[in-house]
Amino acid sequence: MPKNKKRLILITNDDGVHAKGINELIEGIRPLGEIVVIAPDGARSGMSSAISSLTPIRLNLVKKEEGLTVYSCTGTPVDCVKLGVNELLERKPDLLVSGINHGSNSAICVIYSGTIGATLEGCILGIPSLGVSLEDHSADADFTQAVKYGKSVAEKILKDGLPKGVCLNLNVPSIPEVKGLKVSTQTKGYWAKEFQRMQDPMGKTVYWLTGQFTNEDPENEQNDEWALSHGYAALVPLQVDMTAHHLIEQLKYWEGS
Amino acid sequence: MPKNKKRLILITNDDGVHAKGINELIEGIRPLGEIVVIAPDGARSGMSSAISSLTPIRLNLVKKEEGLTVYSCTGTPVDCVKLGVNELLERKPDLLVSGINHGSNSAICVIYSGTIGATLEGCILGIPSLGVSLEDHSADADFTQAVKYGKSVAEKILKDGLPKGVCLNLNVPSIPEVKGLKVSTQTKGYWAKEFQRMQDPMGKTVYWLTGQFTNEDPENEQNDEWALSHGYAALVPLQVDMTAHHLIEQLKYWEGS
Repeated sequence: MPKNKKRLILITNDDGVHAKGINELIEGIRPLGEIVVIAPDGARSGMSSAISSLTPIRLNLVKKEEGLTVYSCTGTPVDCVKLGVNELLERKPDLLVSGINHGSNSAICVIYSGTIGATLEGCILGIPSLGVSLEDHSADADFTQAVKYGKSVAEKILKDGLPKGVCLNLNVPSIPEVKGLKVSTQTKGYWAKEFQRMQDPMGKTVYWLTGQFTNEDPENEQNDEWALSHGYAALVPLQVDMTAHHLIEQLKYWEGS
Repeated sequence: MPKNKKRLILITNDDGVHAKGINELIEGIRPLGEIVVIAPDGARSGMSSAISSLTPIRLNLVKKEEGLTVYSCTGTPVDCVKLGVNELLERKPDLLVSGINHGSNSAICVIYSGTIGATLEGCILGIPSLGVSLEDHSADADFTQAVKYGKSVAEKILKDGLPKGVCLNLNVPSIPEVKGLKVSTQTKGYWAKEFQRMQDPMGKTVYWLTGQFTNEDPENEQNDEWALSHGYAALVPLQVDMTAHHLIEQLKYWEGS
């Protein structure tokens, strides 16, 4: 980075540009550099790495002041990152931070989360990227500890960098005093009993997604659910290469059969 | 599996229940067992592992005949799998097949693909799962080779099983005679020059997602892009654990700092 330039930091989320979590994050991260925010114009929870392949996307300038520019976007969290890097920013950001999400994105939730979708996208595009989530879904949650830990990890990334193809997923428990940071693995598990069946006003059946998480590895002190339930902020390095490399050799005998 | 029961096979896709690809797949797979199809009621390309967390989902019975039941669903590909397993099927399927997608889902496309989103979901829910895609986007593509290879891999899965947490991504080149099956890795790369900027009829700027894939590892004979461009069907084992395990130890020193 040229010394006469401030660091450029791209911020996005999946709860929308008006959510408390992203606005607390912006204030916390502002001292670290020039901030550009490109975030969905409303809630995009559970959007994973979805892209708008069938509809066009619109951008709106929400705010521009010294050191901070905010856009809203009609697309998905991944669209926001792609638009920022491809169309809006003059150079590649030094850091991307996605969040702070209202609700945790630990364990298998990395697969469904729009917050993590945006984080993975930053990583794919070669930007050191961090997703931050607080274990509290409420709109007026207290983000003090999540901002503190998010900023601390952001500073470490700016100082040390991240290897290509790897980004970070930080989840912070909703308690007044977090015990510390714990580098963790993605907890094995799945969601069960996932739907509430209801009748709509016309008497037709509709299904609402709900469910509960089943932890398949609750005693493992290495995983992120263990860290969260014991008062630690859990930091999981994620990779965009999804290949199960350990299975390549084992499957080779299928080639000839 | 009890000997007096036929195998139960769940089929879905992201191009919608009326696409040619899924209907060719159904006919190809039918001899292998009892088929239940739950697929989106229209195109859901690029939906990744998105879930409908903000809207209810509706199901419609499209067809029921000997050995084949077809539902359409208003949700995402992942919603289809969740609804099938949680609400519709009396037991866990012996196999899930997602596809056949119109267009390849090789390399980094696994992150954005609804076809692969559904495949990963089957895997998360403990079902041996396979995604199948043909390297041809056209609505009337010739699926002969893709059906042949998809069926062959499906039979291998039913015979040998798959380890927990791993599913398979099969991409088939659009050529009259595929050379064979090649077990491959996910090609490193990303999409660039991603948007076309246009004016809508009111003169406002809109952005359409487009772009081109940049292959960062074109000489690597192990990866799926190499296999496809050399006339092979590429089979990549994917894992739902996204942890970058090789980085855990290296990051530990951040815990105390």
